[in-house]
Amino acid sequence: MPKLRDKVVPIYRRGDAVYVLDQLALPEKAVYRRLATPEAVADAIRRMVLRGAPLIGCAAAYGFALAARGARRASPAALKRLGSAARRLLASRPTAVNLAYGVRRMERKARELAARNGNGPDFYRALMAEADAVLREDLAANRSMARRGARLLKAGSRVVTICNTGALATSGVGTALGVIRQAWRDGRLSHVYACETRPYLQGARLTMWELLKEGIPATLITDNMAAHIMKTERVDAVLAGADRVAANGDAANKIGTYGLAILARHHRIPFYIVAPATTVDLSLPDGRRIPIEERSSREVTEVAGRPIAPKGTRARHPAFDVTPARLITALVTDKGVARPVSRASLRRVLIG
Amino acid sequence: MPKLRDKVVPIYRRGDAVYVLDQLALPEKAVYRRLATPEAVADAIRRMVLRGAPLIGCAAAYGFALAARGARRASPAALKRLGSAARRLLASRPTAVNLAYGVRRMERKARELAARNGNGPDFYRALMAEADAVLREDLAANRSMARRGARLLKAGSRVVTICNTGALATSGVGTALGVIRQAWRDGRLSHVYACETRPYLQGARLTMWELLKEGIPATLITDNMAAHIMKTERVDAVLAGADRVAANGDAANKIGTYGLAILARHHRIPFYIVAPATTVDLSLPDGRRIPIEERSSREVTEVAGRPIAPKGTRARHPAFDVTPARLITALVTDKGVARPVSRASLRRVLIG
Repeated sequence: MPKLRDKVVPIYRRGDAVYVLDQLALPEKAVYRRLATPEAVADAIRRMVLRGAPLIGCAAAYGFALAARGARRASPAALKRLGSAARRLLASRPTAVNLAYGVRRMERKARELAARNGNGPDFYRALMAEADAVLREDLAANRSMARRGARLLKAGSRVVTICNTGALATSGVGTALGVIRQAWRDGRLSHVYACETRPYLQGARLTMWELLKEGIPATLITDNMAAHIMKTERVDAVLAGADRVAANGDAANKIGTYGLAILARHHRIPFYIVAPATTVDLSLPDGRRIPIEERSSREVTEVAGRPIAPKGTRARHPAFDVTPARLITALVTDKGVARPVSRASLRRVLIG
Repeated sequence: MPKLRDKVVPIYRRGDAVYVLDQLALPEKAVYRRLATPEAVADAIRRMVLRGAPLIGCAAAYGFALAARGARRASPAALKRLGSAARRLLASRPTAVNLAYGVRRMERKARELAARNGNGPDFYRALMAEADAVLREDLAANRSMARRGARLLKAGSRVVTICNTGALATSGVGTALGVIRQAWRDGRLSHVYACETRPYLQGARLTMWELLKEGIPATLITDNMAAHIMKTERVDAVLAGADRVAANGDAANKIGTYGLAILARHHRIPFYIVAPATTVDLSLPDGRRIPIEERSSREVTEVAGRPIAPKGTRARHPAFDVTPARLITALVTDKGVARPVSRASLRRVLIG
């Protein structure tokens, strides 16, 4: 079987810079932004030039490595620059744990290299190689999830999805949308309903763009149409990604996911979360401790730079919500599928 | 107790024309459009210059009367013009039964006048007076619903609402938003969460505009935030209007209402539908027969005239959904409150 490839490359490294597809410009323009410093990477993550939990984890790894640019050895100055880059990158967005995973793993590598006291390889090059590995491993994890998740769908499935969980949210392929890609190739999928996903419209702008590129039959719906579609059309599964999964399987994901899970349960439709092991935060016993980013209310009161509400309008903008494990039919990771979702099943899948 | 008045006049008649507040221009501009023919009224309803089930019922009554302009007697020519106006008005939008109510009532009046064989009052003036009565009665119905509905809320309630069900959806005051107005004055309300209500954004554009004008504390949320708000904030009730209620209490309303009802049930929050008796269609045994308008997919793929999805995107746009009676805690009408909602309770309230 040929490897699952896709037509979208969200990030790549060339020399001493990382290039990211500007997701604020999509779907109108596909342009890459060159990021050559940790500051530039952190800023791009904060402004959502790139987004998606696994992807920002990969970008953060590069951002960290770039702080050591030119340092052949782990000098005190280089280590200081790395510490400051780590703090900046970790502060760029709070909810996705992959960001922390990427930074912590790079810190570990830096410490390991520093411990070799100058007897190791070129410090900066070794860090860049580690960031390349983070990216490569994420792609492999995506392929694993895609295969495992697609097997859960019966032939000709019609699915609902939210936000963008595709190549654009990861190193390529995707999490929930990776499953959709694989299922389409395997003949297990016949139609996708993509929720537009207000306020940022990642479903309308990004998921529809990926689905059109792949030629997968898809219909865009506004978020508030999901219940009506579940009642009046055949829907066989709901697939979503995650930004952080607690040890008991509670999953934080894009705002609206929790509501979709309730609607799926009401209509007896399986609800799947697809996320790599790097998204699981075993340090949190349950979802109540997951920090939920509150973004600017202007992202709600304006669309594409135009106001849609009267002056003086107050708005909320929690960017994520938490779906309790009991509403999740199965959690698909690259290490295996937890089903039913519980502390024990998740532990078994991740640690064995 | 002073009568519930409000600061928004959505429609008024002056001489031989009806003036409607252009809801496509709100909240940026408050401009009235002069409509002097049935064609102009039907076109304004179709294009959603005015919307809201009770309001389009009132406008249709005027549209009908305007077809008889200048006819002192019910001549065959005048009756023919009325027949053609009725067909055009009824075809302008399919879901709201108030439109049919307004037209059917005017037809009855025209027949009654025609039967008097020239011994009655000026035909056109009598029809205009009947349309004025439709408007006046709707306002009285709104006040009755506002009083009855407000009594269902406990002091300091925090509520979620969808779409616009205020003065802008009716002759004034409103249905669900009329209850909110009254409850605010009675000290029974402390906060409103207004769902923006994609794709037309009636919540963001119109409900927030009315709430700001009234000084009622309110927060705008995107539709997909409702579940998270119900879980993480105190919400005491969900209030919605209706475009058509079947004999068993199933209620068609703005797309998203059905989903909200499921979310309210999941969180054990009372879910109220507020609609005048003219919205109940006793000819339909249940909600399955309510025709659901499918509007242009461009209203989904564009916001404020700007595309938000890639070229070639297919989208659905069902403008309404149907909430089954079993998910509705109580149905508030101007004649009384049906609770629990059933064929029998609804009949008792409407017919006695």
